[in-house]
Amino acid sequence: MRQRVLIQDLHSQIGNHVTIGGWIHSIRKQGKIIFILLRDRTGIVQIISKAQKVKEHDIRNENVIYASGTIIEDKRAEGGIELSLEELEVISSPVKNLPIFVNDKADFQKLELETLLNNRVLSLRNPKRNLIFKLQAEIIDAFRTYLKNEGFTEVTTPKIIATGTEGGTQLFTVDYFDKLAYLAQSPQFYKQMLVGSGYERVFEIGHVYRAEEHNTSRHLNEYVSLDYEMGFIEDENDVMDVEEGFINYLFKRLNAEQGQILETYGQSLPVPDHIPRLPVKKACEILKEEYNKNLKGYDLDPEGEKLICDWTNKNHDTELVFLIEYPRSKRPVYTMPIQSNPDFTRSFDLLFRGLEITTGGQRIHDYQMLIDAFEQRNLQHHEFDYYIDTFAYGMPPHGGLAIGLERITAQLLGLLNVREASIFPRDRSRIIP
Amino acid sequence: MRQRVLIQDLHSQIGNHVTIGGWIHSIRKQGKIIFILLRDRTGIVQIISKAQKVKEHDIRNENVIYASGTIIEDKRAEGGIELSLEELEVISSPVKNLPIFVNDKADFQKLELETLLNNRVLSLRNPKRNLIFKLQAEIIDAFRTYLKNEGFTEVTTPKIIATGTEGGTQLFTVDYFDKLAYLAQSPQFYKQMLVGSGYERVFEIGHVYRAEEHNTSRHLNEYVSLDYEMGFIEDENDVMDVEEGFINYLFKRLNAEQGQILETYGQSLPVPDHIPRLPVKKACEILKEEYNKNLKGYDLDPEGEKLICDWTNKNHDTELVFLIEYPRSKRPVYTMPIQSNPDFTRSFDLLFRGLEITTGGQRIHDYQMLIDAFEQRNLQHHEFDYYIDTFAYGMPPHGGLAIGLERITAQLLGLLNVREASIFPRDRSRIIP
Repeated sequence: MRQRVLIQDLHSQIGNHVTIGGWIHSIRKQGKIIFILLRDRTGIVQIISKAQKVKEHDIRNENVIYASGTIIEDKRAEGGIELSLEELEVISSPVKNLPIFVNDKADFQKLELETLLNNRVLSLRNPKRNLIFKLQAEIIDAFRTYLKNEGFTEVTTPKIIATGTEGGTQLFTVDYFDKLAYLAQSPQFYKQMLVGSGYERVFEIGHVYRAEEHNTSRHLNEYVSLDYEMGFIEDENDVMDVEEGFINYLFKRLNAEQGQILETYGQSLPVPDHIPRLPVKKACEILKEEYNKNLKGYDLDPEGEKLICDWTNKNHDTELVFLIEYPRSKRPVYTMPIQSNPDFTRSFDLLFRGLEITTGGQRIHDYQMLIDAFEQRNLQHHEFDYYIDTFAYGMPPHGGLAIGLERITAQLLGLLNVREASIFPRDRSRIIP
Repeated sequence: MRQRVLIQDLHSQIGNHVTIGGWIHSIRKQGKIIFILLRDRTGIVQIISKAQKVKEHDIRNENVIYASGTIIEDKRAEGGIELSLEELEVISSPVKNLPIFVNDKADFQKLELETLLNNRVLSLRNPKRNLIFKLQAEIIDAFRTYLKNEGFTEVTTPKIIATGTEGGTQLFTVDYFDKLAYLAQSPQFYKQMLVGSGYERVFEIGHVYRAEEHNTSRHLNEYVSLDYEMGFIEDENDVMDVEEGFINYLFKRLNAEQGQILETYGQSLPVPDHIPRLPVKKACEILKEEYNKNLKGYDLDPEGEKLICDWTNKNHDTELVFLIEYPRSKRPVYTMPIQSNPDFTRSFDLLFRGLEITTGGQRIHDYQMLIDAFEQRNLQHHEFDYYIDTFAYGMPPHGGLAIGLERITAQLLGLLNVREASIFPRDRSRIIP
């Protein structure tokens, strides 16, 4: 039985006979010597051998092999060590020509995104591309770790639902036996219900579905939402405080533990002391005065989001800004209005490097106020009884938010299209692979 | 601004003036004194007050209140402390009569499951019921922690898919713009593809969907699957080794950190040294010899699963058993056959206390062998090109498994119906709440 040693652990094996396994990253012949770069999930190492020794074997890029030999120091090799080959075993060889070159040092920058996504398994083997989802896993883990420490309980809520949560449009329909059902646009109602069921503080990492027709670089039709919801708050500022704490924790952790990934992508990540909270009304005034940009109805378009981040960067030295107090007409029915100014709400977005990555706010927790809100929007509130009834039995003030996982990943790494931050993205035209 | 103290932290507050917040669990009057039990997410504490003091307030079960006062020692109170009320603020009162009594000490055992699920928010407020999903969160966290330490990367894969993975039936259809799509029965193909894309070891915690018509106590149509997949294995035993390590870690952790939950549910949890691996053929012989039970075709029915666990318990002193070497006809197309005995496969189930909680095995990693397998089953393999092509570009031997989260939760707590272990279950007839 093979005892495979990971490439990252070879430094402590100098002089030892070991077996490594992985994919052939590249091959170079120099006279009678052959140099093979072998890639596993932890790194790349050079194998050196007499060409004669391996000539019986099918040695090509992306072959899966096991190689046994002695680890020797060699300053000329990358990483300063190499494996002097004694035995080689080819496990699996490509049976088709490689459509793209995994070892492309330019990180496929000349290829179309479509080509990368159509060849997703191969494009992710590229060492730089591969890092995207290592970073993403770290974001997920940081979210969970931070919230767990803050007393949140992880939950899983259904994605097959009877009614929408964010308004009736943009829903995918599911044929559910004899019923018509939908895919959840968000866990919104369920996370509120779980606050009310005594968990008080819950979070969920799960897929959400938006049947949006538009095909932009910022939209996916299926994405991963990092959600939390918390009870016994004073107002929406408590929700923002938790996010601020999370961002602080996340950025510090990424700098400390994933600095190499950030560096590979040419990114530095300043940790914000404090994220400014700017009323959207004020933001619109700034955009008009400073950028000569006119917006209708106190809401920002994508260009407005970029410009206000530019302004915040210059004036507050931060890449993040909370926009707060959105008008009621722009927010979902369950959003808590500001009592003294009821056309506006206790809601917020978080923008990061020019893109909205979070939507959140305080929610209505009063039964009658919620029914009135549904009626004002001409929503058939009886369809939502399963949700609204929650508020008939004692409900604390609460609020929460959702962070788009792919969006924050893309912004952290400077990816231009959110699809690059989804392993197998779903958009208007893509459901394969 | 209120500084709310959690009930679990009151012990260090004796003599201090604090504010607590939560739901009124019960009320008892004794002469001129009123005793209120207040419940928050961390526990229950007694509030003591002159009845006169609170008579202006609407004091009823399940009201949400803030209560301020001094923490005093009182051995008669549960937990040995109570809050002597100074100020009371009622935040939210029930506007409807409570359909079930949250403080039911018998844990709703006289109620129908339907009633519990229809009133899910209230039934989860019951302190005993509430624990189910605290334990479930711990299982999820243990899975993740264990696998992360074993070098696995957490991934998220699409649930909207173009083709099935476990055979063409039992798929829910989704109306995806101008296309017909399906809900994923499992992340099977995607996790294999991610092994092949260089991550080697991946895990996912996500929903899966089975359009099964039957409505049993063991089935859900939407459930959470704890999946992992690992490359560079020798055979399926490596996959079982990891699960054995996880079960060991999980059971020890639950005993150490969640012993109170197990105790509340009357469960003890012996940690297995080793989980026996029993060929299914052998299991069928045992069932015939020891229990006079005849099974067709080397597969166990639910009664067979119970009986073989009974046998393992008696003969191997363990509540867990791997059944291995299932016949090829009972396993999905991608299952690796045993070379020397190709009617059987390198697959396994894990049974726990009479119920299958895991299915797994080694997968075919050879391109031609996989195409042949598809053809033998008369599957149109071109529909699956996005998956099969993975194997055309160098693929290591690999395998993996899936654990049903609700099933393992139910088995750990002795719940009779898997629906009790799903926060908002989806079955043949239920999509609300």
